[in-house]
Amino acid sequence: MVLLNNMKSLMKYCKLCSMRGIGQYHTLSRLFQPLNVKPKDATVTKDQAISISQKLLMDTGVISLRSNGMFALLPLGQRVMTKLIKLMDTEMSCIGAQRLSLPLLTSGNLWKKTGRWESTGQELLTLLDRHGKEYVLSPTHEEAVTNLMSEMYPFSFRQLPLRLYQIGSKFRDEMKPRFGLIRSREFVMKDLYTFDGSEEAARDTYEEIGGAYNRIFQRLGIPYLREPSSSGEESEVPSPRKMVYDVYRKASAPMRRLHLQGDDEDDVNEPQTSSVSTWLASPVTMQRKSLPGKPPLNKGTRVGHTFLLGTKYSKTLNALYQNESGKPEVLQMGCYGIGLSRVLAASVEVLARAGNVKWPWEIVPFKICLIGPKKGSKEGGAASWVGHLAEVLSSTSALQDEVVVDDRDRLTIGKRVMEAKKSGYPFIVVVGKRACEMVPMFEVLDCVNDESQFLSHKMLMSWASQLS
Amino acid sequence: MVLLNNMKSLMKYCKLCSMRGIGQYHTLSRLFQPLNVKPKDATVTKDQAISISQKLLMDTGVISLRSNGMFALLPLGQRVMTKLIKLMDTEMSCIGAQRLSLPLLTSGNLWKKTGRWESTGQELLTLLDRHGKEYVLSPTHEEAVTNLMSEMYPFSFRQLPLRLYQIGSKFRDEMKPRFGLIRSREFVMKDLYTFDGSEEAARDTYEEIGGAYNRIFQRLGIPYLREPSSSGEESEVPSPRKMVYDVYRKASAPMRRLHLQGDDEDDVNEPQTSSVSTWLASPVTMQRKSLPGKPPLNKGTRVGHTFLLGTKYSKTLNALYQNESGKPEVLQMGCYGIGLSRVLAASVEVLARAGNVKWPWEIVPFKICLIGPKKGSKEGGAASWVGHLAEVLSSTSALQDEVVVDDRDRLTIGKRVMEAKKSGYPFIVVVGKRACEMVPMFEVLDCVNDESQFLSHKMLMSWASQLS
Repeated sequence: MVLLNNMKSLMKYCKLCSMRGIGQYHTLSRLFQPLNVKPKDATVTKDQAISISQKLLMDTGVISLRSNGMFALLPLGQRVMTKLIKLMDTEMSCIGAQRLSLPLLTSGNLWKKTGRWESTGQELLTLLDRHGKEYVLSPTHEEAVTNLMSEMYPFSFRQLPLRLYQIGSKFRDEMKPRFGLIRSREFVMKDLYTFDGSEEAARDTYEEIGGAYNRIFQRLGIPYLREPSSSGEESEVPSPRKMVYDVYRKASAPMRRLHLQGDDEDDVNEPQTSSVSTWLASPVTMQRKSLPGKPPLNKGTRVGHTFLLGTKYSKTLNALYQNESGKPEVLQMGCYGIGLSRVLAASVEVLARAGNVKWPWEIVPFKICLIGPKKGSKEGGAASWVGHLAEVLSSTSALQDEVVVDDRDRLTIGKRVMEAKKSGYPFIVVVGKRACEMVPMFEVLDCVNDESQFLSHKMLMSWASQLS
Repeated sequence: MVLLNNMKSLMKYCKLCSMRGIGQYHTLSRLFQPLNVKPKDATVTKDQAISISQKLLMDTGVISLRSNGMFALLPLGQRVMTKLIKLMDTEMSCIGAQRLSLPLLTSGNLWKKTGRWESTGQELLTLLDRHGKEYVLSPTHEEAVTNLMSEMYPFSFRQLPLRLYQIGSKFRDEMKPRFGLIRSREFVMKDLYTFDGSEEAARDTYEEIGGAYNRIFQRLGIPYLREPSSSGEESEVPSPRKMVYDVYRKASAPMRRLHLQGDDEDDVNEPQTSSVSTWLASPVTMQRKSLPGKPPLNKGTRVGHTFLLGTKYSKTLNALYQNESGKPEVLQMGCYGIGLSRVLAASVEVLARAGNVKWPWEIVPFKICLIGPKKGSKEGGAASWVGHLAEVLSSTSALQDEVVVDDRDRLTIGKRVMEAKKSGYPFIVVVGKRACEMVPMFEVLDCVNDESQFLSHKMLMSWASQLS
């Protein structure tokens, strides 16, 4: 067939490489996962409170403090972030949102037009280029996206509703960065901006996106509250036009009243941007600031917001659409955010138990950690099972690229199990003493329910095939 | 089984959503793809040369100029970038490289220690935080990654070779940004840093990564040359320790001699950073600068580099490992980059034909554009085929999420085919006159080979199932 020429010429890439992943597994000895690292230049000073999540994430080599309020995602953290991004992409696609990327630098002029250059104050990181032009290292992109839309006219009513989102780095020069990824100066956000033709349509959008956000947090399986926010320039009463998502430990989830009490001091003191800001201001939390090293957040961590903006930005920056009669009309906007760095940290913050990380299943760095016998031990002969099991487990659909082998066989099984539990792998498969029996049995530890059982090879495969 | 409890509780997320994608297709009427946009504030001024790729990418709504030398990736561009990133991740995983993310802001002190704060000059974007501390908006991350490694000691020889890469935004304050994504001030790069225990091991790494880079450009199917670079601080003769990857139109691929002639003026004038820099300096190109609007690049576009760094950074910043005798030794480093924004633009630059975009198969925004009859035309009755074909085509493994329907049925088929060709979709499926025949026939246009043929429903499905 003629068309095959095209296909053949187009598809001469390495077939081998595109097959990788199936049956492939990772080994802990090669994983760049520095444990218990104490940075030299970037120590946590006494006036910086650290949180449960910051300590655990640093201790297990998921993040690394690089400078004040700025963290690197190490390979394990990057794996979590990649999965979070995939989850966002799926849910955003479900509501017809389209992903784009605006520059991280936004012209200072746009921020001056909306007044936020002044109102954001010192939290805004700004710079001059070589020609002396001012730029904002964007904490959020209302100005940039509205400016983009202002150039689209005549943008037809037929193309509404329009939903545009991006996933990327954001910046805020916090006075006192603290609690690791929860209040950092450089962080990753998914920010979504919506455009509608009428207030009513904008409200429908608002509801639909609220639904998507609920699904996201439900999929993550972290306890959260969706509540009206009382913060804002126009009013100090809670408004249904502004909802926030706060993550709680189950035990400490506050009554609604208690929650609203918390929305005070910090938020009033802070310049109001519409991006995510932690709610850390209850009297209890305020006291804790003077106790470095104490986990500060058994209250709530703000991880998301949904704001109906009306025409605040679109009017100022002239973002219009052409209505059914061909007349220009101002677009109704909404902005919606989920702090991905915060979701990563908040998950650990609220799910951790007894000093062990617990990851939401959907974003865990690896689903299974496989541990073989110590070299030279009685059960040393069972070592040959490890590679085989890693390969066949990695070949099941749910575990492709999800198996890590702790191959540091100079360490005892017990020591490695302890570390694997600390790192939060949901399942640990141990090739130990009973792997030497006539019918070899392998121990599967369920770290979420603190249960374990011994499975034969056949049962293990059947168990793995049921995972998803 | 006990373990099922864990699974069940972990996996209560929306099954429906994770199934999305199969049989789902996009419609052009809802796609945010502004055609022929003329930005108001951000016009291409006369002294800015634009390139074939910049014009085509802007005309087809793939990118949008936001401010001088800074572009947004619109949804089509984002799709290309997402595919490029996936390709990088696959190839990096093949050579055992681990992905991480360092902050975009790097402490100015580190750059002062290596001398690059001074030597990079005005191309370096810097800022002060609220406490007056200096930061670099990083154009590259040698300092940051070496500083990270310096905190790892004792890092065992057993963990070498170590290969760390990231994919993200980079910044360079070009004096004269031009040619769209080819010389912009904010761009996306994949940057890889390697650590070895000896010069010999570093050279092996260098060869292996060279192989991976070759595979990447071969998979993309763009004509390129891998050549020793003559640019550098230490020497002006080409060195096998520094290789560069330049993309060429086939017709204009220069002789080796000619290529080396080009590596002159611009590179000498520019401060030498080890990141990707365009090679734009042949006398011919220099003349062209005064001719705005002329495509400047039928020579080469630099899209990648591989540099053996030796101990340049690791010595200065004290990045050591513990050798087999337990003694500290300085790490041997390499840095390797591929400019993803540039690859996107360079692909269009060299593959475009007769004013039509041609995308490499692996990164094309959509593999198939489906066009139905004009509303009210003679063949209007065949319109019901469109949704059906879109669904079944999207259900084949290679075309999941790869089908876009041009549903603007007020336009003629001819007009839409023309636009689809311009946008660079490799295959266009037309539901036209012959779809009304007893045995309906659909036209498949192969835009790479400028061929077309009519296929029955059955043949069309069989054809689609062979794509990959």
